[in-house]
Amino acid sequence: MNERAIFLFSCPDQRGIVADVSRFIFEAGGNILDSSQHNDIETDTFFLRVEWDTTNLVFPRQEIASRFADIERRFDMDLQLHLEPRRTKIAIFVSQHLHCLYDLVLSMREGEIEADVSAVISNHEAAREVTDAFQLPFYHVPVNAGNKVAAEQAQQEILEKTGTEMVVLARYMQILSDSFATRWYGKAINIHHSFLPAFVGAKPYHQAFERGVKIVGATSHYVTPELDQGPIIEQDITRISHRDQVADLVRKGRNLERLVLQQAVKLHVEHRVLIFGNKTVVF
Amino acid sequence: MNERAIFLFSCPDQRGIVADVSRFIFEAGGNILDSSQHNDIETDTFFLRVEWDTTNLVFPRQEIASRFADIERRFDMDLQLHLEPRRTKIAIFVSQHLHCLYDLVLSMREGEIEADVSAVISNHEAAREVTDAFQLPFYHVPVNAGNKVAAEQAQQEILEKTGTEMVVLARYMQILSDSFATRWYGKAINIHHSFLPAFVGAKPYHQAFERGVKIVGATSHYVTPELDQGPIIEQDITRISHRDQVADLVRKGRNLERLVLQQAVKLHVEHRVLIFGNKTVVF
Amino acid sequence: MNERAIFLFSCPDQRGIVADVSRFIFEAGGNILDSSQHNDIETDTFFLRVEWDTTNLVFPRQEIASRFADIERRFDMDLQLHLEPRRTKIAIFVSQHLHCLYDLVLSMREGEIEADVSAVISNHEAAREVTDAFQLPFYHVPVNAGNKVAAEQAQQEILEKTGTEMVVLARYMQILSDSFATRWYGKAINIHHSFLPAFVGAKPYHQAFERGVKIVGATSHYVTPELDQGPIIEQDITRISHRDQVADLVRKGRNLERLVLQQAVKLHVEHRVLIFGNKTVVF
Amino acid sequence: MNERAIFLFSCPDQRGIVADVSRFIFEAGGNILDSSQHNDIETDTFFLRVEWDTTNLVFPRQEIASRFADIERRFDMDLQLHLEPRRTKIAIFVSQHLHCLYDLVLSMREGEIEADVSAVISNHEAAREVTDAFQLPFYHVPVNAGNKVAAEQAQQEILEKTGTEMVVLARYMQILSDSFATRWYGKAINIHHSFLPAFVGAKPYHQAFERGVKIVGATSHYVTPELDQGPIIEQDITRISHRDQVADLVRKGRNLERLVLQQAVKLHVEHRVLIFGNKTVVF
Repeated sequence: MNERAIFLFSCPDQRGIVADVSRFIFEAGGNILDSSQHNDIETDTFFLRVEWDTTNLVFPRQEIASRFADIERRFDMDLQLHLEPRRTKIAIFVSQHLHCLYDLVLSMREGEIEADVSAVISNHEAAREVTDAFQLPFYHVPVNAGNKVAAEQAQQEILEKTGTEMVVLARYMQILSDSFATRWYGKAINIHHSFLPAFVGAKPYHQAFERGVKIVGATSHYVTPELDQGPIIEQDITRISHRDQVADLVRKGRNLERLVLQQAVKLHVEHRVLIFGNKTVVF
Repeated sequence: MNERAIFLFSCPDQRGIVADVSRFIFEAGGNILDSSQHNDIETDTFFLRVEWDTTNLVFPRQEIASRFADIERRFDMDLQLHLEPRRTKIAIFVSQHLHCLYDLVLSMREGEIEADVSAVISNHEAAREVTDAFQLPFYHVPVNAGNKVAAEQAQQEILEKTGTEMVVLARYMQILSDSFATRWYGKAINIHHSFLPAFVGAKPYHQAFERGVKIVGATSHYVTPELDQGPIIEQDITRISHRDQVADLVRKGRNLERLVLQQAVKLHVEHRVLIFGNKTVVF
Repeated sequence: MNERAIFLFSCPDQRGIVADVSRFIFEAGGNILDSSQHNDIETDTFFLRVEWDTTNLVFPRQEIASRFADIERRFDMDLQLHLEPRRTKIAIFVSQHLHCLYDLVLSMREGEIEADVSAVISNHEAAREVTDAFQLPFYHVPVNAGNKVAAEQAQQEILEKTGTEMVVLARYMQILSDSFATRWYGKAINIHHSFLPAFVGAKPYHQAFERGVKIVGATSHYVTPELDQGPIIEQDITRISHRDQVADLVRKGRNLERLVLQQAVKLHVEHRVLIFGNKTVVF
Repeated sequence: MNERAIFLFSCPDQRGIVADVSRFIFEAGGNILDSSQHNDIETDTFFLRVEWDTTNLVFPRQEIASRFADIERRFDMDLQLHLEPRRTKIAIFVSQHLHCLYDLVLSMREGEIEADVSAVISNHEAAREVTDAFQLPFYHVPVNAGNKVAAEQAQQEILEKTGTEMVVLARYMQILSDSFATRWYGKAINIHHSFLPAFVGAKPYHQAFERGVKIVGATSHYVTPELDQGPIIEQDITRISHRDQVADLVRKGRNLERLVLQQAVKLHVEHRVLIFGNKTVVF
């Protein structure tokens, strides 16, 4: 794929933003490949994602940021600039359920998700069957009531030494600390096996079974200190009936969790998600 | 359509129920058209719906109940017997949003739902456009802080004098009393414009917008004294995005509410729903 | 809603289009509300829909076209300019199945579709129940083997005298002539009750039943001389099973046809559809 | 899971079938766990699947068939009797696309599908990465214009020596002979990457792209001599837009193919599918 740049930003809405950004790209010798915008009416905020071809750039790629700085300042942008293609380094946290881990690893192998696994970190040994099969770095970090701080310290060290850029909690059944959530804010994604905000917390399939719902869901969201309250990226659902016991919900939920997490990770890696308050803009 | 009978029951599970019921039908000269069963493992309860052709019945149709009484007693059944075809008399409660009312009326006209409107009851005048167009009996029962008891009394009198067998709250924005809910238990269906148990109570689309969900839903359930807590019959969802303001959710929800309520009323009228604790078995 | 203008166009792709269009809007005193673009790689064609607020326009609204003409020429645009809000005049053709007609009429009344019914034209009398109920102009134009040319002549006269801008075939069971299709090209939408290209032509539910599919669909497309071959705007599906007879498919298809046609008409009326070869770009 | 037996049959419809089958089970000391029936009105054919607990059987399990033979004859049943639990031996044919193979293997490991892989047979070497990772028997059978008969002979020998009971074509891109299809009739399942009957044959995603459909699908069906014409077991779809190039359809189709094939294999292995003419009854 050609060399591309992505501007992803929000700023206070005013007239002329698109005109200035598109003139910048034109004068830089770029060609817009894809552009999406959004105006939040309540807060008068403007969001833009513009992906542009930099093959015929009239100045060096590394200068895009500095040359764009004027426009960035003028419109008071909260800006991300991504130079593509490059592969994000993802650490996957997992406990005993391996279906999401398998799905992510296969999605990366098939080119569905442009990323690499920097580390698989688990409080159990089960995931070794995956990391052995695909020759991925496995880190066993046991977690118990007494060692939570030390374990998280160990995890953080692994993330640093492996150059991890993004954390995916792929059915990781330990609660991470507020400071971890804060440190990785906007870069850590969790899969929760319910249609949030329904059935927050532990055993959502049991909760769904008790309530007698006719549909169960899965939700992928950014990790925040408040459990299962972070900005939602993607959700999906599947139908159930009175015939389904908890074990059936668990089983039906597996395909759902896989697809929802896969999609959320893909969206993040392609720089299509902007966090805005406790919501997301997904381009 | 031929003359048919429907047995719909639950009872403690034991061996031989299906054998006895099917032998009864065979010896009565009937022919099973459709049969569905369910065993609830936790409580060891058995559920059956069997619809059978009574065209060649060897005794008068009115005797089915008395002749089946032995089996009913032996297995301690909680039994409903329905002789079909017949059209259920439905009273529709509505406030200012008319889309569900329109949909139900048209569904009955098209034969989608085998029922008739016994009354349209509203605390507003808006629904008159529907009842005038389709020549349906309209009852305006204003409700305000001071007259709630009298209004419900008036409503109950309308239901009685019109021979109403089922109540449908088709976006009726007044809360009915516990005694009303209890009196019509198992015969009154509400549509709630969220994916319950998410967003209980007032303004669910506003709540959904605030939380930033990527999917909104609608839920049809039996009315119980606890608001939006009754046994769920049917749910469905539709996708939304960051572009959708509350007004868009309201708009997108309309088709959803229509279809979910239509389906729930249809299932009830066809005697396909059994309430079981706070859940439903839907055959 | 505020006064707005919509540019909807395709043109050969080249650098600078967005820059020039957005500068034009900026200098005109406009503010972009919504913008979507698409590049067709195979043919190097660029598509844009941009909706912008004209409340503070620095020149009269009627001058937008002439002032934009330079840019239009320079990029060789195939341009539509729409000044909003305004309500499209729609003629609905229908035969004996009224569910799509009802749905469209109600969608316009509820503000879901910003349009008015200029005429309901039918080869049967059945639709009178709708036009009487909602006080719409009804035109009965009988069609038989011998009068097809005269009938279409009569229909065309009705369309002209009512100022009709768009034709919707809402389960109209007569085939229109090539010259009609050509005359109304890009302004006439049909609903076909199958998942095209499966089950072209007559009795698609019978065909679907014979093939034993597990899903049936509906397709809304622009009318062209080739039956059921026009550019597709919208499709949707619903699940069926071995239990469903042809009559059940017809019944289940009704909600589907309603929603698919409603959505296609809405997209067209909001100027979100561009025909491109035998496909559509839907913004 | 407990010991269970499954009766799966079709027979000419007549009164008393359910009565006799359920009495047989009752007198055998069995308990019905799940029962589904269907009457085909056109041909007056009756279908039943009944799954029953044989834990307290009053005679040896091996005698079920002989003791049931009277009833089987009397009603002229086309009967399958399955004694569960047991794991079906499945051979998976695959070419270069590995996503369906991975999904099936993982589904069996997770207990989602109660079966084992007897052989992975491929005309390419690509699948070795899967069979090596999961220690499955891999058979490389190259196929070219000159060796088709010999290759199929080799495949058949592998199927026999491995005791294979079911064949799954998991994106196997070679056409099998009529005699192979006939020999494995009712025991071989294919995944076709379109919404059949649309886009039969080669390159369905290219065909879908050309036609400009808004939805693509996948279909799982029993293999018959006529290409892509066999009885359909399961179908599903996903939305696409004008933005999607052929490569995007291929990508989006992957998850779809996986899920549809997984579901079809699961249904077959659980003895929930009866072929009837060129259709299926799926209980």
